[in-house]
Amino acid sequence: MWQPDRLSNQPLYQQIADDFERRISYGEFPPGTQLPSERKLAEQLGVNRSTVILAYAELRALGIIESRTGSGTRVSQYKWGVTPKHTPNWHRYVEGGTFLPNLPFLRRIREALQQNSGLIDFASGELGADLSPAKEIGALIAENPYIEYLGYDNPQGFVPLRETLVSYLSKYRDIQTTGSSILITSGSQQSLYLITQCLLTPGDAVAIEDPSYCYSLPMFQSAGLRLFRLPVDRKGVHPDDVRALYKKHRIKMVFLNPNYQNPTGVVLDEKRRAELLDVASELGLPIVEDDPFSLTAYDGNPPPPLKSIDSVGSVLYIGSFSKMAASGLRVGWMVAPHSVVERLADARQQMDFGLSVVPQKVAAEFLGSAYFQPHLERLRMQLLFKRDLLIEALEKELPNLVSFAVPQGGLHLWCKIIPEVNDHKLLEEAIRRGVIFAPGSVYGSDSGYVRFTFARAKAEDIVTGIAKFAAALRAVLD
Amino acid sequence: MWQPDRLSNQPLYQQIADDFERRISYGEFPPGTQLPSERKLAEQLGVNRSTVILAYAELRALGIIESRTGSGTRVSQYKWGVTPKHTPNWHRYVEGGTFLPNLPFLRRIREALQQNSGLIDFASGELGADLSPAKEIGALIAENPYIEYLGYDNPQGFVPLRETLVSYLSKYRDIQTTGSSILITSGSQQSLYLITQCLLTPGDAVAIEDPSYCYSLPMFQSAGLRLFRLPVDRKGVHPDDVRALYKKHRIKMVFLNPNYQNPTGVVLDEKRRAELLDVASELGLPIVEDDPFSLTAYDGNPPPPLKSIDSVGSVLYIGSFSKMAASGLRVGWMVAPHSVVERLADARQQMDFGLSVVPQKVAAEFLGSAYFQPHLERLRMQLLFKRDLLIEALEKELPNLVSFAVPQGGLHLWCKIIPEVNDHKLLEEAIRRGVIFAPGSVYGSDSGYVRFTFARAKAEDIVTGIAKFAAALRAVLD
Repeated sequence: MWQPDRLSNQPLYQQIADDFERRISYGEFPPGTQLPSERKLAEQLGVNRSTVILAYAELRALGIIESRTGSGTRVSQYKWGVTPKHTPNWHRYVEGGTFLPNLPFLRRIREALQQNSGLIDFASGELGADLSPAKEIGALIAENPYIEYLGYDNPQGFVPLRETLVSYLSKYRDIQTTGSSILITSGSQQSLYLITQCLLTPGDAVAIEDPSYCYSLPMFQSAGLRLFRLPVDRKGVHPDDVRALYKKHRIKMVFLNPNYQNPTGVVLDEKRRAELLDVASELGLPIVEDDPFSLTAYDGNPPPPLKSIDSVGSVLYIGSFSKMAASGLRVGWMVAPHSVVERLADARQQMDFGLSVVPQKVAAEFLGSAYFQPHLERLRMQLLFKRDLLIEALEKELPNLVSFAVPQGGLHLWCKIIPEVNDHKLLEEAIRRGVIFAPGSVYGSDSGYVRFTFARAKAEDIVTGIAKFAAALRAVLD
Repeated sequence: MWQPDRLSNQPLYQQIADDFERRISYGEFPPGTQLPSERKLAEQLGVNRSTVILAYAELRALGIIESRTGSGTRVSQYKWGVTPKHTPNWHRYVEGGTFLPNLPFLRRIREALQQNSGLIDFASGELGADLSPAKEIGALIAENPYIEYLGYDNPQGFVPLRETLVSYLSKYRDIQTTGSSILITSGSQQSLYLITQCLLTPGDAVAIEDPSYCYSLPMFQSAGLRLFRLPVDRKGVHPDDVRALYKKHRIKMVFLNPNYQNPTGVVLDEKRRAELLDVASELGLPIVEDDPFSLTAYDGNPPPPLKSIDSVGSVLYIGSFSKMAASGLRVGWMVAPHSVVERLADARQQMDFGLSVVPQKVAAEFLGSAYFQPHLERLRMQLLFKRDLLIEALEKELPNLVSFAVPQGGLHLWCKIIPEVNDHKLLEEAIRRGVIFAPGSVYGSDSGYVRFTFARAKAEDIVTGIAKFAAALRAVLD
């Protein structure tokens, strides 16, 4: 975001007025756009409210904006002359569309992180810069910077990456497959999006875990799906619940994250895995298995995926580079029957014409390189270290106020706040004190749960962050 | 695609049977999947039909596949034992979904190109490897291979790329804007997809050019939009037609490609541009301006975009790297009011969680580098050279059988076949003779038009390609 230059000779209010005039003239804020309130803009720019009042007065004097009591400040409708010309009612367009906006909590979190880069971040579900193999990837790029062909890629994805994944899946996930059964996607998010858009029809019932990161994805509602819940206990979801939901609602698909589930960290029990596959094959019911965290298993021994014991072909398997290496590469994959891969690849062509070859080349080289295994080992050690820092801090700062199970893999700790607490108030108070987290209700749970991502924050900030969180919690409970 | 090894000691039929057994066991072809006919598989693998008959017989003997007269060959349902276990009916899932598959002609073209890499390609609307700045991009990557942060990117796109685009748009397209008004997308395709999904509602009427590449995009129908046509004459669309469509159908948006229109190559007349903007502002009607070809203008002087003379804020401007540098980077941009940018960025997060930072960094460096301007100059010269080769060949091979206007920019030549001809037969005959093109009906025109992309084929193949096309046309006309 633009910020005034405090070293300039030009007064701050004049800089702000000039910036708005420029942006309005460029069309960033078309006529009729509501501008931020004086208070909010002052906060965003880190200036006094009086400075913003002066800036807005300047713009009003120029006829560029109009303020009316009760309805705030807007860009003037008729600044371009006497003929009434109409800007499209962008507001109405923005409210339209079949695609639902993100949850308010998630938008609030994103906004807070954009406004204050100093926040200690337990909310973003990704690896911090310290855990990502940026140097290794840079070294690989430097070794082989040339890309022979920069035209449109194969709709299923870069062939050498698919070939590398065949070995990777066999070696690390015990999945035997072929390059033609793999679709490369822009991370698990796009795999899920393609499945919900292309394989399901509005009105279809699907089952998701409770709690689940799937609740945080309005794409399920945008696709018109009816969501039914499979409670997650210490051993994961129960196969009987799948059968019951099928009988009652004819669910069409089941979405599971069996290893180090997001947000709970739970691992699906081995016996239940076999039973689930039996239920699925009995009912002809597809299971979407999202498996982003397995390679973070702190002991290096994640349970094999459902897909590896699926003899009937019930499972669509989703993997990704994001949680074990670098979310910013945007490289994920799906293993599915060929007809499904073809259908989804065709649809994806229409959405974005496929993935860039550059990150796919980088991902293929990294997965196939001697850097990959040492990176995983370092990652596991560091995640375990950060997890323990978090747990120690919680036990020290909030004894008797929180309870949690200790995750054995993944990036998150799922934490129950024992006394009754208002999620919204707690989040705002935490942000005010310099720390941010993901409220449990984002994942469909009741109020009073928190997902702490310990992978993102720097190790040295975890203790401070939890101290701030504890202070916020006590302030809200008082 | 897998191919049998002709140097192996193992008979071809056995290799084919083994490959199918492996792929079926991996779940690529679940039980019940229809397998290719013997004739088709023989063609795909380049073997005799008798070889495939032997391979299928082998698999039948193992109980892995079943053949029934009239319904072809399928993977057996019950190969896993006596208990009937059901694979999900993937066929039904694949047929479902709100997202329409690509047009049959486009799927046919893609399939033909995948099966025969020797086809002379006048169909793929992109630059050939000889025109793309792969070396320059490789050199830039080599100079600066490191990426500091590999976490999730800003939802609007990589900040340094947006800043570079502010200068680029001012210098090359006479558009004054700010980084916060720009959304980076996976090419124009994703810009259009986001607009149709998020700003329009099923049932909305929109206007597109006739003919238009928009017809080739089922995304418009998938979004439930009603399409109305604006005929393109030598000067482009007529503003009165926009007004008439608005009166009759209350169109909600107009999609235009004013410079070197795809597929016709037409440039929208200057006077009509001003009138169009007047109509748009009178009706409060948004115009989506797709501007991928301007920098290919052979004289280096493309007309300025609508956006540069849009004082009211009616225009959503779409640009891309694809047609002027490298489609495989998948980097495009949209300039729009901030509220629109925010809405689309939010929705895009849900679809794919944003673009990879790697190609965005590459694009920013290339646009800001000393390589960019010389690349453009070389590109224009080479496009002009290829265009002239194509025109000479058409005039030599098909005098009096075709007519066309000479494009002054872009990658395509739009060609009318004067005698009556069947699009489908002509395409198949051309493929058989080793050349491929895009039939005009893909773009919504009547039968008997052809779009030749002259940017993709090698210069030395253009003359041969047109000779093959001419032979195909004469064969079909006979």
